[in-house]
Amino acid sequence: MTPSASEVLAPTAPSVPQLLERCRDLVRPALTEAVERLHPWLGEMAAYSFGWCEMGGAPVDASGGKGVRQALAVLGAEAAGAPARSGVAAAVAVELVHTFSLLHDDIMDGDPLRRRRATVWKAYGTGPAVLAGDALFALAVETLARTPGGPAGMRLLSAALTDVVSGQADDLLFAARPWTGPERVRPEEYRTMAERKTGALLGCALSLGAALGGAPPATTAALERVGRHAGTAFQMVDDVLGIWGDPAVTGKPVHGDLRERKKSYPVLAALDAPVPAARRLARLLESVDTPDEALARRAAALVLEAGGRTAALAQARRHLAAVESGLADLPLAGPAADELRALLGFLVRREL
Amino acid sequence: MTPSASEVLAPTAPSVPQLLERCRDLVRPALTEAVERLHPWLGEMAAYSFGWCEMGGAPVDASGGKGVRQALAVLGAEAAGAPARSGVAAAVAVELVHTFSLLHDDIMDGDPLRRRRATVWKAYGTGPAVLAGDALFALAVETLARTPGGPAGMRLLSAALTDVVSGQADDLLFAARPWTGPERVRPEEYRTMAERKTGALLGCALSLGAALGGAPPATTAALERVGRHAGTAFQMVDDVLGIWGDPAVTGKPVHGDLRERKKSYPVLAALDAPVPAARRLARLLESVDTPDEALARRAAALVLEAGGRTAALAQARRHLAAVESGLADLPLAGPAADELRALLGFLVRREL
Repeated sequence: MTPSASEVLAPTAPSVPQLLERCRDLVRPALTEAVERLHPWLGEMAAYSFGWCEMGGAPVDASGGKGVRQALAVLGAEAAGAPARSGVAAAVAVELVHTFSLLHDDIMDGDPLRRRRATVWKAYGTGPAVLAGDALFALAVETLARTPGGPAGMRLLSAALTDVVSGQADDLLFAARPWTGPERVRPEEYRTMAERKTGALLGCALSLGAALGGAPPATTAALERVGRHAGTAFQMVDDVLGIWGDPAVTGKPVHGDLRERKKSYPVLAALDAPVPAARRLARLLESVDTPDEALARRAAALVLEAGGRTAALAQARRHLAAVESGLADLPLAGPAADELRALLGFLVRREL
Repeated sequence: MTPSASEVLAPTAPSVPQLLERCRDLVRPALTEAVERLHPWLGEMAAYSFGWCEMGGAPVDASGGKGVRQALAVLGAEAAGAPARSGVAAAVAVELVHTFSLLHDDIMDGDPLRRRRATVWKAYGTGPAVLAGDALFALAVETLARTPGGPAGMRLLSAALTDVVSGQADDLLFAARPWTGPERVRPEEYRTMAERKTGALLGCALSLGAALGGAPPATTAALERVGRHAGTAFQMVDDVLGIWGDPAVTGKPVHGDLRERKKSYPVLAALDAPVPAARRLARLLESVDTPDEALARRAAALVLEAGGRTAALAQARRHLAAVESGLADLPLAGPAADELRALLGFLVRREL
């Protein structure tokens, strides 16, 4: 058995689930109202992906995700000294953008399942899922355009959108590159991709919430960097879970990322290490197109031996430390700063 | 031979191609600069769809379309009394949104060709085409967010985006509805769809250009309605060409829309007419899944006999008259008003 990551990272604050629930409850009416403005068919697909209904529109209470991004937007406003409701438009916008990107990413990645339900493209078809994503994207822009303080906010949102799309492009392109040689994917490139694909929207949630709460540009810029570090740390931990996570917790098969030949950070860091295990790992990855469980287990052992797991957790710690110091340096209001710290720690540590 | 539509509608102004070229030349540097900000891979797909390059990036001079929307934005600014350059950001934004919607629509409709070249999804794959469309969408928002006068403009753009997406949703849903009975598609529903799917972005081009040129809200709202009427008229004429257009001019097979069983306006208007030919048309459409050329010719004759062609051209005339009167009622500056009138007339009449 490998050492548990919870031995490496400190435990999470106990109040985070309540905090998430408070923010979901606060944001839900505005999010519902926005989705109801959609074309009814597109609105059904949106509600399906939020876990509010089944195909055909029958109400259901499925998991629509924890709502980390909406909570960050609300806490961003509170940290700026404004009431929570000032961050609601930002929360709605980032939640819509997040769901749009999930819908389209699932098409690009061919994923049939999300949160144990059929993905939208699998349930409704590829074309309708493309369009539903577009509608959510447009609704996010419209939501912000209707909000006082829109212009500064729109710059933050559009910059994040551009980064999310660029990160996804790199992620798609990485799959086609070789495991070794000058064209290989470097661990640093992967971290940049993760910062864009995952970190940019977390940073946007925080900074947009703070901007609508009246924070000055220096504070919103600093909060954006905090969110980006949190996103990068999150991805590092997610990659560790993608190989060594408990299937009962992650809902994914053991060694899943290795069976899918995913170029995740632990693998890339292992391949980059000047050790014999790295060369054995490279030979194994290059020789097998569809690794079975035995080969995936062998690859996982080589990634571990070559230091890939340690490197990923070290990066997670490093970016989490940047989150902590970034928050400590800011003049944030009241309990929101502590709640932010707890929420970002929870996001990164999660099931570890 | 059916009567030529050019007998029904007045001839077009001769200066429109020069006008379009002037606006393309004015907008091209800013559009190029925006596309160069994209991720290089997504930028290549964008440049491919603009007709600037082949797959792989080799330069080429293919048709990227006439650039009607960018010209409307430039003329909108000039009509507001501002210099043409005031409308450039609006021109770039609407051109990016237009291209985004073409990329995604081609995926939804499964169209392999556009302007006699492979569509982006056909050339690069569905996932990359989804992402390239998203990138163009984000770039449009970013372009406007960077522009002075952004907030009012963002409301116009986001409202248009919502309508474009809703119109496309209705268009997709119409295909699944029956030809007759209470669930059939009414001609009025089709016109509303066309106004959203095609008219909203034309209206946005005009109103956004005018808004950036400093026009008051009443003027931008009136110009938006003008653009919507022009889009509806355009679609009516496009539908007539989709059945009776010259394949050498349209690049589409004769009776193409009937062979594809498209629920276009002439067909829906014919089916709605209380005449025997309407009932014969309904029986024909309901009995054949893949009409051959002989059946399509028979259907075209029945649409004509039931008055579908006449009804579509009457609607085109009606909406074009609304364009003319809308422009006449506005206090527009200098030659731009005449140029707008000429351009919108050209757009509607085109190859007729």
